[in-house]
Amino acid sequence: MESSVGIVEKQYFTFAAPPEKFILESGAELGPITIAYETYGTLNKNKNNAILLAHAFSGDSHVAGHYATDKDGEKPGWWDFLIGPGKGIDTNKYFVICPNILGSCMGSTGPSSINPDTGSPYGLDFPMMTIGDMVITQKALVDYLEITQLRAVIGGSVGGMQVLEWCVRYPGMVQAALPIATTMRHSALAIAFNEIARQSIMADPNWANGNYYGGDRPNMGLAVARMVGHVTYLSDEAMRRKFGRRLQDKESFSFGFDGDFQVESYLRHQGSKFVHRFDANSVLYITKASDYFDVVDQMGASGPLKGDPSLKIKYLVVSYSSDWLYPTYQAKELVQTLKRSGQDVSFCEIEADCGHDAFLVPDNRLTLLLKGFIDGISSN
Amino acid sequence: MESSVGIVEKQYFTFAAPPEKFILESGAELGPITIAYETYGTLNKNKNNAILLAHAFSGDSHVAGHYATDKDGEKPGWWDFLIGPGKGIDTNKYFVICPNILGSCMGSTGPSSINPDTGSPYGLDFPMMTIGDMVITQKALVDYLEITQLRAVIGGSVGGMQVLEWCVRYPGMVQAALPIATTMRHSALAIAFNEIARQSIMADPNWANGNYYGGDRPNMGLAVARMVGHVTYLSDEAMRRKFGRRLQDKESFSFGFDGDFQVESYLRHQGSKFVHRFDANSVLYITKASDYFDVVDQMGASGPLKGDPSLKIKYLVVSYSSDWLYPTYQAKELVQTLKRSGQDVSFCEIEADCGHDAFLVPDNRLTLLLKGFIDGISSN
Repeated sequence: MESSVGIVEKQYFTFAAPPEKFILESGAELGPITIAYETYGTLNKNKNNAILLAHAFSGDSHVAGHYATDKDGEKPGWWDFLIGPGKGIDTNKYFVICPNILGSCMGSTGPSSINPDTGSPYGLDFPMMTIGDMVITQKALVDYLEITQLRAVIGGSVGGMQVLEWCVRYPGMVQAALPIATTMRHSALAIAFNEIARQSIMADPNWANGNYYGGDRPNMGLAVARMVGHVTYLSDEAMRRKFGRRLQDKESFSFGFDGDFQVESYLRHQGSKFVHRFDANSVLYITKASDYFDVVDQMGASGPLKGDPSLKIKYLVVSYSSDWLYPTYQAKELVQTLKRSGQDVSFCEIEADCGHDAFLVPDNRLTLLLKGFIDGISSN
Repeated sequence: MESSVGIVEKQYFTFAAPPEKFILESGAELGPITIAYETYGTLNKNKNNAILLAHAFSGDSHVAGHYATDKDGEKPGWWDFLIGPGKGIDTNKYFVICPNILGSCMGSTGPSSINPDTGSPYGLDFPMMTIGDMVITQKALVDYLEITQLRAVIGGSVGGMQVLEWCVRYPGMVQAALPIATTMRHSALAIAFNEIARQSIMADPNWANGNYYGGDRPNMGLAVARMVGHVTYLSDEAMRRKFGRRLQDKESFSFGFDGDFQVESYLRHQGSKFVHRFDANSVLYITKASDYFDVVDQMGASGPLKGDPSLKIKYLVVSYSSDWLYPTYQAKELVQTLKRSGQDVSFCEIEADCGHDAFLVPDNRLTLLLKGFIDGISSN
């Protein structure tokens, strides 16, 4: 139960209640919208010490600390090693905000939320959304908190896509941007894996075209989808080191389909754990938003990625050497794109054999990198 | 309908009919066993010009030419570009044999075959088998054809595993071995993808514990399994070149789940095509046999891979630069293992951006490599 952040609480911000309208990029309307979020540290008088964290695909707003209701042995938030007094992102200095993304199932409005028009969960009536939509709702939260300037926007993976969207949509509000283990456009390979995850869910008869909330859930399909995800988060090297060909609880082959190898048990465990905490429809919507993500070409964006050198954001792009979902060559493409538009960009590739998930693994190199970079940004 | 091999015919060899017993590596019994096979060219008088081809996971014995029943537009066998008069594997010189593997559904005995004990398809009563079992049944076929010496054993992917098993089990029968795009042991990553494919099939309620032959088939699960397979057969580069982020039959995003990108359509097409030609239970058995494959450590093998330099097989190991299922580093491990046991090994990595499937794509570099190597083996 160790966490230097201590006890934290999930908060909620609701906006766009009808007749107010929130228009998504697709043109669809959605409202009211609730964004769950957590904060750490204290907003200073000038309101210029805020840092926004954007979480990854299946993450949530619970970045650090414990809830008062946590049981013994419960893990703290997902970036607890980075967030806290004196840590990489120092809550003695900064006011850290992490919103749960639109479309998720961790407190923010998503397909499992109640549709006010019907009194039942949205299911597939939830409108398709984009990374841009996620960021627009985050901006609404930041406005509500009366913050006009973010010292930094930081995020890994799908969180890194949100970072880039922030820079495109609200460049005047962002002092520093730290896109980590991410890409400026989803590749065919990444789309392929997401499509397999979606097809796996939609192939489960319990999915019932998204209307499963009153009955059995598409847990089998969702578990397979998660197994696919987990393989993409690891790497050949990591799996060789972590599992190799070691057998699980047996000394020789079973000659059956119950699983022989540790890697099989691991994946099955990850799959069955996930169905208890995540909503299958949220997987569909969030993966689709990632697939649509192409911050340069398919967005009509007009921010610094398109080239407005007057709006100087300080970028730190971080990639991991064994990440094959968003490989280093894609981070370099991002760096080049930013450089070409005259931006102030630093780039670090961290050598790590644990694949895409490396940014979630405690690593002092990331901690020191972030600390040095963020502390070097002067307040306006 | 072009094929220099012309019209070919599938043949069948049946053995181990009770009371004769065929004992599998697991200790289970199986019989009778039918092996479907095709041959090309003519066995010479000395019976020393035979080449055995081992096909990959979902392949079959139809390597080249057309069946008399083929319709217009039907494709010839899967290695037609390599097999024929004057081609890389010259049927004017060699007698080429390709057996369908045990456990498959393309003519050889597998889980969809009739279990003589029940009069119904085996389903999960089919015994678990290994790559070794596949090779032992191939040896029975070769014996039946009264061939005591194989000029070469050639195969890609799971076919390459069979090549290595031939060398381990019957080193005295093999003059040259050409393991292509393969590995000497299945990695954790490869096991992981196979396990996802199996879980996807077994999650389909129609799978019904393998007893689906009288009713609806687990086509949804099998299609997702095939999609997973196809991603592993391609590469990041190949997918970027082949699909990129191009949309399928539309000019802008659909904001729906019917698929937007060409890569999604491609995978769905591959998935739905596969269910018409392949049996889900065969996928389970053959993937499991591949996962068990570890020709060095887990086999009790005593052939040249363990080090018997008196039995000189000429090896040509071929890998492809963008194959991430059985990457070049694994081919190099194989080469080192063979070298350490004093074997005669050549190794070529072919630069190709199309991933694991490269060995199935017409490529003159492979043709010339095989031709030069095979023609250089003197008859005994």
